[in-house]
Amino acid sequence: MTSHTHAVRIYDTTLRDGTQGEGISFSVTDKLLIAGRLDHFGVDYIEGGFPGSNPRDITFFQEARSLRLKHARLAAFGSTRRAGVKAPDDPQLRTLLDSGMPVMTIVGKTWPLHVTHILQTTPEENLAMIEDSAAWLSAQDREVIYDAEHFFDGYKTDPDYALRTLAAAIKGGATLLTLCDTNGGALLPDFAAATARVVAEFGPERVGIHCHNDSGLAVALSLAGIEAGATLVQGTLNGYGERTGNADLVTILPNLLLKMHRAAHCAPSLATLRELSLYLDELANLRPDTKAPYVGASAFAHKGGLHANAARKIKSSYEHIDPALVGNRTRVLVSDMAGRSSISMKARELGFDLDEKAPAMKKLIAELKELEFRGYEFEAADASLELLLARHLGRRPAYFDIESYRVIIERRRAELIAEATVKLTAAGRASHTVAEGTGPVGALDQALRLALEPIYPQLKNISLSDYKVRILDSRRHANARTRVLIETTDGHRHWGTVGVSDNIIDASWEALRDAVDYALMRHEQKI
Amino acid sequence: MTSHTHAVRIYDTTLRDGTQGEGISFSVTDKLLIAGRLDHFGVDYIEGGFPGSNPRDITFFQEARSLRLKHARLAAFGSTRRAGVKAPDDPQLRTLLDSGMPVMTIVGKTWPLHVTHILQTTPEENLAMIEDSAAWLSAQDREVIYDAEHFFDGYKTDPDYALRTLAAAIKGGATLLTLCDTNGGALLPDFAAATARVVAEFGPERVGIHCHNDSGLAVALSLAGIEAGATLVQGTLNGYGERTGNADLVTILPNLLLKMHRAAHCAPSLATLRELSLYLDELANLRPDTKAPYVGASAFAHKGGLHANAARKIKSSYEHIDPALVGNRTRVLVSDMAGRSSISMKARELGFDLDEKAPAMKKLIAELKELEFRGYEFEAADASLELLLARHLGRRPAYFDIESYRVIIERRRAELIAEATVKLTAAGRASHTVAEGTGPVGALDQALRLALEPIYPQLKNISLSDYKVRILDSRRHANARTRVLIETTDGHRHWGTVGVSDNIIDASWEALRDAVDYALMRHEQKI
Repeated sequence: MTSHTHAVRIYDTTLRDGTQGEGISFSVTDKLLIAGRLDHFGVDYIEGGFPGSNPRDITFFQEARSLRLKHARLAAFGSTRRAGVKAPDDPQLRTLLDSGMPVMTIVGKTWPLHVTHILQTTPEENLAMIEDSAAWLSAQDREVIYDAEHFFDGYKTDPDYALRTLAAAIKGGATLLTLCDTNGGALLPDFAAATARVVAEFGPERVGIHCHNDSGLAVALSLAGIEAGATLVQGTLNGYGERTGNADLVTILPNLLLKMHRAAHCAPSLATLRELSLYLDELANLRPDTKAPYVGASAFAHKGGLHANAARKIKSSYEHIDPALVGNRTRVLVSDMAGRSSISMKARELGFDLDEKAPAMKKLIAELKELEFRGYEFEAADASLELLLARHLGRRPAYFDIESYRVIIERRRAELIAEATVKLTAAGRASHTVAEGTGPVGALDQALRLALEPIYPQLKNISLSDYKVRILDSRRHANARTRVLIETTDGHRHWGTVGVSDNIIDASWEALRDAVDYALMRHEQKI
Repeated sequence: MTSHTHAVRIYDTTLRDGTQGEGISFSVTDKLLIAGRLDHFGVDYIEGGFPGSNPRDITFFQEARSLRLKHARLAAFGSTRRAGVKAPDDPQLRTLLDSGMPVMTIVGKTWPLHVTHILQTTPEENLAMIEDSAAWLSAQDREVIYDAEHFFDGYKTDPDYALRTLAAAIKGGATLLTLCDTNGGALLPDFAAATARVVAEFGPERVGIHCHNDSGLAVALSLAGIEAGATLVQGTLNGYGERTGNADLVTILPNLLLKMHRAAHCAPSLATLRELSLYLDELANLRPDTKAPYVGASAFAHKGGLHANAARKIKSSYEHIDPALVGNRTRVLVSDMAGRSSISMKARELGFDLDEKAPAMKKLIAELKELEFRGYEFEAADASLELLLARHLGRRPAYFDIESYRVIIERRRAELIAEATVKLTAAGRASHTVAEGTGPVGALDQALRLALEPIYPQLKNISLSDYKVRILDSRRHANARTRVLIETTDGHRHWGTVGVSDNIIDASWEALRDAVDYALMRHEQKI
């Protein structure tokens, strides 16, 4: 029987190993929400925490008992008993058991170097620690999963001892052996050979793998482990984890299910993968990785005219899968390499009909080229591009007319102020407003809103969500050309605008003005 | 002869394929600087651009002719001639040749589907297009490298035709065949088998690979290609590139050289790898990926008590390589590792004697921690650090005392002004100066000089040589914390200063003020 007849089981450790990542910290509520999402998405095991090392995880497990999971089993993580004590007398194992979870994952040492130097005990006692711990927890009617720490380093040094640690776990009653590349140092050929050996020894249904990305290979190692016969894959969402992170389930699962055509035991709903990935980043307060395979905002974005054209002609040419399968979509970027076809595609995407041979096209291309030469960039400024398109098509309404703005930044010893005034006419009404802010851009934003909100109350719902400054030619020094990108949101959608100037404040102003203009245009179109 | 006897050649396409990445845009000056750094680092080929599609790249190649490279060969990229025209009559090939570069890399079609649907010609004409183009460029005394687009998809559909396209390139005089996984869709077993077949057919010294990261496998595929016998690896720094990016040389090279123990033809200086990676992100205005394998700030950071402790006990346990080999370092998170010895070393380096146990040390460490927490960074701001050290040692003279500054930025329709005033006392003389500039920072710089130059004429010789802005927490929006780095020069030396504030102008002012202060301190010490 080959391993290919086995469905793959997914073991998620976002809530335990994932939280070792720098800057990752989830509250108990976050963890409960994530566990619910993971179950809904479709994973087999959810490792919720390490109760022996983290009091917050004890609370999590208490509250997790009332979660109604439809598929996933919750696992608590701990380590084998200490040397020289009986399993029931080990406080850490007791805490693990007290978590009340149906699955207990225990980690133990594979590498004789670690046994003697870190545990400071004998290789034989280490085997007893593994077996006893598994046996005691199994006797309490728990499913025991054994994580073999540093398995691949240990196996390289002393393969017989490494296999004996696994045999000890099985003898104790473990249902699964997870081979861990703990320091992320393994290379593919060694990893695959060691996994195949373990599969041959213990059977595919007993073998799992757990990888880290220190060599940039976590996804590849995980897939190679499955190819070598393992049937359980451990990983985290978005690859959260210590150092360079754990194996990223968000990349592994589409590879496994869509490209290697393997079956997953719990049939995860891949079409919600991008949404799940973004949800996790939101809770972790991390900026989503736009380059993330499958789910990143750039994963199906096409820039070069050559490629954009080909992508339209033969969809599969530059897209290895249909983006909808993972909840993503194709995007066309506009750059100075783009030809008419990508502008025309972009226009269609934005709801305008602009034929490649339309007379407006020539003028638009010329203006775009000129703007890009001056430092504008529209890839992250779709709203500025849309305003430009609308103007060329004669469909850009004038919501307001700005006569002047002024910003004063003044410091007197410890006192620092930023004050902005804006003078404009909107819907026939003139206004002259003033506002203060911590900085000049905030002050300008406030003054502009004060002027416009009485006329356009819909602007109350929009706010800046990102602000980026790029000095384009810093060698021109203090008066360097500056590009400002602003992202704005109405709580549902996000849009980007751009401004370029030798004056950093004026560049910011231009992007701000476009952001508001776009909000008004969108609002009108919706009505 | 096995491929293992061949040193691996590195082909960098950061400046061509890398610029297809969303948000990546390099000026001609940036590209020249990067080419110099790549050569210095140690790569075999630098692909500088696609002159046929991008006028900016034509300028780059014109200016690149005067670069003095010690090792790398510059390559220009283009595609095979169009169907039905003679190679010398193809304007795109002519533009490629006119770049004047010693290496011409031409891309051609492997996949019959693309030949008939995109090129709209016959498979036979495609073979002629490949051979003719290679032959004509070779006849002009250029090294021709052939990039086989969509090689792995084409090979899967029609392996014989795929191999015939490669044979056509060799017949035309190509020295190298690069097998491209253009849409990033390949999986390891197929990729390795196809590469091995091409190596068997054409010899390892003729075969290179070019991968994309759409399946999260670009690094693994590149290494598998080398294992299968290929001897040239194409990639980009930091994995810049379209969609999810190209194969990341910054990860591939340490894997290849430090872990697979392969030799590289040009022996890149890996100890500068992190520095090179950060430099590129700086020019691209991208936030460095803290989780990047090998070079990320988190790559050797230890958080869990368990791991941090073990890492201290057995260094190799949780670090797959010595971080110094790639210019990185171990960091212990959530701990009081302030690094007194390094501050003390820095002080000595700057000519101060500050013992690790000196009372001033404790205060200094506390202030540095506080400043770093607030967003200051001293790696590129040696002058600001030196001023801080001098202050803690009671050796910072007061050259001027600023009472106030004010900047006004005002736009009235097309008219834009920036005016700065500075009020200060220096050497007992009060002054109140005003100046205009294109932007606010230039105006402030001018006003400060007007005030100080009558008293300190030595300031006439100094000028700003670089100005950088980084938004630290753009999610806080318009009032985001901003870090400004300024580089100043007296024509001989350069020094960096830093300012941080929620007000972008005040952050700039702080860095400006330090720059002048430092110039005065240096001048005095020299006398």
